[in-house]
Amino acid sequence: VSAYAVVLAYDGTDFVGWQRQAAGASIQGLLEEALAALDERPVKATGAGRTDAGVHALQQVASFTLERSIAADVLVRALNARLPPVIRIRSAREVPATFNARFDARAKSYRYRIFNDLVMCPFERHYAWHVTGRLDVAAMGDAARRFEGRHDFAAFQAAGSSVATSERTIRSSRLVSEAPDLILYEVTGDGFLRHMVRTMVGTLVEIGFGRRNADSIDELIASRDRSQAGPTAPAHGLFLMAVEYDALAAEP
Amino acid sequence: VSAYAVVLAYDGTDFVGWQRQAAGASIQGLLEEALAALDERPVKATGAGRTDAGVHALQQVASFTLERSIAADVLVRALNARLPPVIRIRSAREVPATFNARFDARAKSYRYRIFNDLVMCPFERHYAWHVTGRLDVAAMGDAARRFEGRHDFAAFQAAGSSVATSERTIRSSRLVSEAPDLILYEVTGDGFLRHMVRTMVGTLVEIGFGRRNADSIDELIASRDRSQAGPTAPAHGLFLMAVEYDALAAEP
Repeated sequence: VSAYAVVLAYDGTDFVGWQRQAAGASIQGLLEEALAALDERPVKATGAGRTDAGVHALQQVASFTLERSIAADVLVRALNARLPPVIRIRSAREVPATFNARFDARAKSYRYRIFNDLVMCPFERHYAWHVTGRLDVAAMGDAARRFEGRHDFAAFQAAGSSVATSERTIRSSRLVSEAPDLILYEVTGDGFLRHMVRTMVGTLVEIGFGRRNADSIDELIASRDRSQAGPTAPAHGLFLMAVEYDALAAEP
Repeated sequence: VSAYAVVLAYDGTDFVGWQRQAAGASIQGLLEEALAALDERPVKATGAGRTDAGVHALQQVASFTLERSIAADVLVRALNARLPPVIRIRSAREVPATFNARFDARAKSYRYRIFNDLVMCPFERHYAWHVTGRLDVAAMGDAARRFEGRHDFAAFQAAGSSVATSERTIRSSRLVSEAPDLILYEVTGDGFLRHMVRTMVGTLVEIGFGRRNADSIDELIASRDRSQAGPTAPAHGLFLMAVEYDALAAEP
């Protein structure tokens, strides 16, 4: 038995999300089918982050074990031959049998893309949130920085979530204006609650519109009250950019 | 009667091309349907460039006349409300009745995108040609420059084309390496023959692979023989970037 980790990129547009669901195509489901065909037995794959329906990934990480031993480059080609073009295995490596892509992840990075112009760019329709109206990008950038540090992010958690703790450490939270009409929000942390990045973005956009002040973020975090935060930004603007591990580099 | 010019962006993936065909959805067809609904009579639209099936546009220009007079910003909103999200009207302006988007065009700019890595990026699958294997980008850049100037481009014309003259002036022809895996070819000229840009790109890639030398471009142009040039690069890597007019700026 050999254990492997793969780095995947996928366009989440037509999926129910990373995780297998009762109905609909999931990235996990398609990966597990490709692995089962390869190993001629059922294979379970564990993903570092459970991306929601419509969320994309440039570097998701998944771990699994195979009965047969396969060279990493052969594994990449064999899986890509079985997966649809919207899911690509970027790299593979053999890992210790104890490696778990989800529980061994030390940090994750996400990017959220906002397209801010009157007319939506047709090429961005599945890859950015279309926000019309003038945004105060400086105020949004100021507010973004206030998420950094260790905080209880209960106010930014999907309603009905139950996790042991809603404390998380955000290492970096920055707004980048890549072009006059394209705003990127980039965040790295040791973990994220369900819908946390999207709720942070929904709140940042309210600050961009002047509906709340940048310094209200501090009170909002302290409130631990989801109803005080902004709306959940749409899934299709969100990209899982990278997952970090102690010993194992997730980079291809 | 009022005459208008609109600037359009579209994702060409699911279209038979700009031009109306016997079967399949065309950008021209959908624009004309939206215009007919607006003007309550059949309207004919003329496009600056007849992009092929799968070819995209960031700034196509189309001209038409309407019985009713409509403010430019109202026209943009009314057309976008009737067009699918893959086609967007970026701007509109009233033009002299004699204006013709096709015959008055003085120059067009195209960009061709090549994704050069072993594993294709899922987000580029409809927007770049996937070329695997090491490319000599410097040789390709040298070759690209040799297209500049006034030449007879008969060797780069789709077989069976009949045009008055195959002479064209290329103002600029450059290769840009935007990222290690992304190569952009950008060309501006007073006009292009059918499949000309794609055949130029197919030939540049052969030079990138060392199958022909950069200076062979000069002989190839002189040959006027399509069978001497490289293959036609796939349509989905090509973008119409801009159209220039004497008096009328195509920019929104």
